[in-house]
Amino acid sequence: MKKEPIRIFARVDVEITRKGERTRQRIIEKAAPIFNQRGYSGASMQEIMEAAGIEKGGIYRHFSSKEELASEAFRYALGQAVKARMEGQDEIRGAIPKLQFMVRCFVEKPSPVPGGCPLLNTATDADDGNAALRSLASEGLLNWKTRIGNVVKEGLRVQEIAPRTDPGRVANTIIGALEGALMISRLEGSRDALRDAWTNLEAFINGLAA
Amino acid sequence: MKKEPIRIFARVDVEITRKGERTRQRIIEKAAPIFNQRGYSGASMQEIMEAAGIEKGGIYRHFSSKEELASEAFRYALGQAVKARMEGQDEIRGAIPKLQFMVRCFVEKPSPVPGGCPLLNTATDADDGNAALRSLASEGLLNWKTRIGNVVKEGLRVQEIAPRTDPGRVANTIIGALEGALMISRLEGSRDALRDAWTNLEAFINGLAA
Repeated sequence: MKKEPIRIFARVDVEITRKGERTRQRIIEKAAPIFNQRGYSGASMQEIMEAAGIEKGGIYRHFSSKEELASEAFRYALGQAVKARMEGQDEIRGAIPKLQFMVRCFVEKPSPVPGGCPLLNTATDADDGNAALRSLASEGLLNWKTRIGNVVKEGLRVQEIAPRTDPGRVANTIIGALEGALMISRLEGSRDALRDAWTNLEAFINGLAA
Repeated sequence: MKKEPIRIFARVDVEITRKGERTRQRIIEKAAPIFNQRGYSGASMQEIMEAAGIEKGGIYRHFSSKEELASEAFRYALGQAVKARMEGQDEIRGAIPKLQFMVRCFVEKPSPVPGGCPLLNTATDADDGNAALRSLASEGLLNWKTRIGNVVKEGLRVQEIAPRTDPGRVANTIIGALEGALMISRLEGSRDALRDAWTNLEAFINGLAA
């Protein structure tokens, strides 16, 4: 008979935790576009509170600081962008078509979280600023470079890609051209620069063939 | 005899104005690296006051708002970067060597105002934010595109550059690749990405020859 109330408490605990997790996730999802558009300093906790429909104290029950919330918001925003850009990639066969697919996805699928590419935003926002965000941006860049580099390495292994191709240089070329073009496109309110980068990168990637 | 005191007043006025101009310029120069590193929201007026050695009221005697100061600081920072990158360009003959020179200057001469390229910083900071800064960044981008475009047009005129080369596409390619590579280089704390962009752009520019 002693075990009954304990089980009830446990169930209540689980429900509270689940509700807590849902609230925490809602705050992250509502904060992400605000941080992505306004940057770390420009994002106001007031605006985030209103977007999440929560009191300020409520936010600080879930996050120890603005920095922690910004970090989670960046992880979420970048995760959404990567997910959108990777969708369908596993079905593509061959290193060259895979690289072409990656470029096309970046050009055709804008960041699902408003404000443009979370990596470009956080990189330029945090390169002289917040160390935690800078480190997350570096990690995001490294993951992207690794994904491209692994495709190139597999292409080298099966001799689809010309020997002595440097995977790091291919990654720098693709990421640099896309992010720079995105900066221009967003400022101009036109997709021209992204389309020009796409044309150039198509030729560059085809030129990697063995 | 009546004119004497008027002349004295005029001289005093001129001196006050000159002193005012010097103070205003000093504030701009001290504010520029702070805005360039921290962004519009992240730049604190307190830090700017301390850097310029002036009281807050003093700043607002020279600038109507933080936005006005940020705009002047951006103009100054971009002007310094453009000056550094343009130096010696007039002596270069030929469109292709001129474009190569522009790329080399960007890669070899970092922004004289700390914090990286003012255009990249302000573009990503202001694309969803401050309208005045966004408009100045757009103007800066347009000027840069025009400078590159004019070199291409002159190259087309003298048949140094292949017919049907699109000056806008050349400008987008050069600026996009350089700015994207700068983002990577600053985040990685390495010049690799800038060097890779340089190698690619050298080939791209040589490929424009008629």
